[in-house]
Amino acid sequence: MTSPAVKIVGVGLLGTSLGLALSRQGIGATLEDQSPANLRLAVDYGAGSISGSEPDIVVVCVPPDVTASVVTQQLRQHPKAIVTDVASVKGQISKAVSALSPADHSRYIGSHPMAGREKGGPSAGRADLFYARPWIITPDSETKPEALDAVRDLALRVGALPVEMSASEHDEAVALVSHLPQLVSSLLAARLVFGEEGQLSLAGQGLRDTSRIAASDPNLWVQILEQNSVAVAGLLKQLGSDLAHLSAAMEDVAKPGALAEIHKLLTAGNSGVSRIPGKHGGKGSSYQIVTAVIEDAPGALAALLTFIGEIGVNLEDINLEHSPGAPIGLVEMQVVPEVAALLSEKLQANGWRLV
Amino acid sequence: MTSPAVKIVGVGLLGTSLGLALSRQGIGATLEDQSPANLRLAVDYGAGSISGSEPDIVVVCVPPDVTASVVTQQLRQHPKAIVTDVASVKGQISKAVSALSPADHSRYIGSHPMAGREKGGPSAGRADLFYARPWIITPDSETKPEALDAVRDLALRVGALPVEMSASEHDEAVALVSHLPQLVSSLLAARLVFGEEGQLSLAGQGLRDTSRIAASDPNLWVQILEQNSVAVAGLLKQLGSDLAHLSAAMEDVAKPGALAEIHKLLTAGNSGVSRIPGKHGGKGSSYQIVTAVIEDAPGALAALLTFIGEIGVNLEDINLEHSPGAPIGLVEMQVVPEVAALLSEKLQANGWRLV
Repeated sequence: MTSPAVKIVGVGLLGTSLGLALSRQGIGATLEDQSPANLRLAVDYGAGSISGSEPDIVVVCVPPDVTASVVTQQLRQHPKAIVTDVASVKGQISKAVSALSPADHSRYIGSHPMAGREKGGPSAGRADLFYARPWIITPDSETKPEALDAVRDLALRVGALPVEMSASEHDEAVALVSHLPQLVSSLLAARLVFGEEGQLSLAGQGLRDTSRIAASDPNLWVQILEQNSVAVAGLLKQLGSDLAHLSAAMEDVAKPGALAEIHKLLTAGNSGVSRIPGKHGGKGSSYQIVTAVIEDAPGALAALLTFIGEIGVNLEDINLEHSPGAPIGLVEMQVVPEVAALLSEKLQANGWRLV
Repeated sequence: MTSPAVKIVGVGLLGTSLGLALSRQGIGATLEDQSPANLRLAVDYGAGSISGSEPDIVVVCVPPDVTASVVTQQLRQHPKAIVTDVASVKGQISKAVSALSPADHSRYIGSHPMAGREKGGPSAGRADLFYARPWIITPDSETKPEALDAVRDLALRVGALPVEMSASEHDEAVALVSHLPQLVSSLLAARLVFGEEGQLSLAGQGLRDTSRIAASDPNLWVQILEQNSVAVAGLLKQLGSDLAHLSAAMEDVAKPGALAEIHKLLTAGNSGVSRIPGKHGGKGSSYQIVTAVIEDAPGALAALLTFIGEIGVNLEDINLEHSPGAPIGLVEMQVVPEVAALLSEKLQANGWRLV
């Protein structure tokens, strides 16, 4: 397959990363950005060049609130090109493009590479950003088959995993697995503003994990949430209903049925979390955990993992447990059940401390 | 200092772990449990023995709902001993002990080692469970100084960090940093029950982190929440108020002020999460992240960390990023800012792929 001529509009995190990834595959993209400084930076990083041949495909990587109008401009400017975008909400943009350029709508296809970082801008670009991430593509009944082929080809070239679904399926899915978690994390973290320093000093890994994504960029998230407001509002309403029941039960735990209500919510949480697939698409609960103690010093973790590599055991996940002020760390290693016993045995036989 | 005679009542996760930790320090605790099978198991694991001398200190490690009555029994049975407990809520137990045995209340002192696992029972016991964790001690105006000394001594012997505060200070702190996060995580995860499999297959690290503790034991948590219902209900009410504002804004994002309301919540989340101290008590935000790409194969992570050990760099934290179905992993390494540039440079100079 010959390489397509690619134009990238918008050289923030996603645009620059796409340019870098394509560049590794020998494809020099044409870059465009409103900001001359950002554009020069992206070129300097090696994400592409300022001028190039007429594009086969244009990838619009601008903020969600201007995506539809930029897509429309690009459809007009390049009357033979396929145009796609990478915004994290798809339905509203598709409708807007359809309204703005009804004749060219068949050359537009929405997409959403599920990759990101907590930082933005060209300097945050990574050539591996899309590697092994789902890249959702959302054709509709009017989409030309060539458009779907072109975006799928692009996704595969940068190592992503193309997944096809409708725009509304996409928006409902991300409302649940991405937008609701963001808001729940922000709601929790917003309460910490009122905590005392001494209280926060007792924070453990549970609070840290639950509030981590509350550090995300509010400006970007306002745009995402605005565009997916219907799906997210529906989920927030259901969450609010669950919270109201829980809150009423907690207000008067002596009332008959109160503890059962609390128990019901906690049990539903157990069920929900068990439905999240683990790494490689397996069930998260199918791994066993082996925990070792190491010193908090250079090389300590490496020595442990070198040994594990030598005995041929592959770790599915690894987690360092923190202890405030402690000179040691606990290393939680997730492995497939078949090797857990072997790993424990070999570690202990070779002087590693397990807990 | 001579070793105290220690009696442990209840050989679940905490009791067994305490026995194992003391045993490493050459202190053979006396163990007691309602369940003869669990008791034998704990003895077999080396957590202590069934009979022993009259205790100097009794540590009650039974479920929260029976802690006060067991503490009272132990105060009567051992009229010279200091009695403490390890339940994760302190105010209600202290009041109950005071009411049940007013004459002996000065020999009781509440405590809460902030250590745990997702599993329970004697077989989950770890000698290192308390190592470098805060062990909160909650004396009141009637507490004998010897009681405080005895529990502080015990905490130090098992490697924990004694922290003194009042029972109500403790309960308010854990309501915010432990009980609220638990409920928020459960509320989020409970909504996943209604998600489709295809939606859940798009779950990323954000959802995984936010919902992880939703896997905790509902039976234990019902007891904890019941005993700390006042503080937790207050926080839930405030969370509910924030959620109501957010929900109203999301219901009609076109309404003037709606986006500002959403932005306000997201920004408050930024502020709140930045208040959580990092490892070793430092600010979490003071570390820089260097990210490397490795193959998902035995030894790959070890080779990376061996190299890092060789160049003398200490990692403050490490995080593997998952990619569904991918044969590679991204390793996010947190380091102090002073060594971030050195680490990046040396890794790249030696052929490691950074992103």
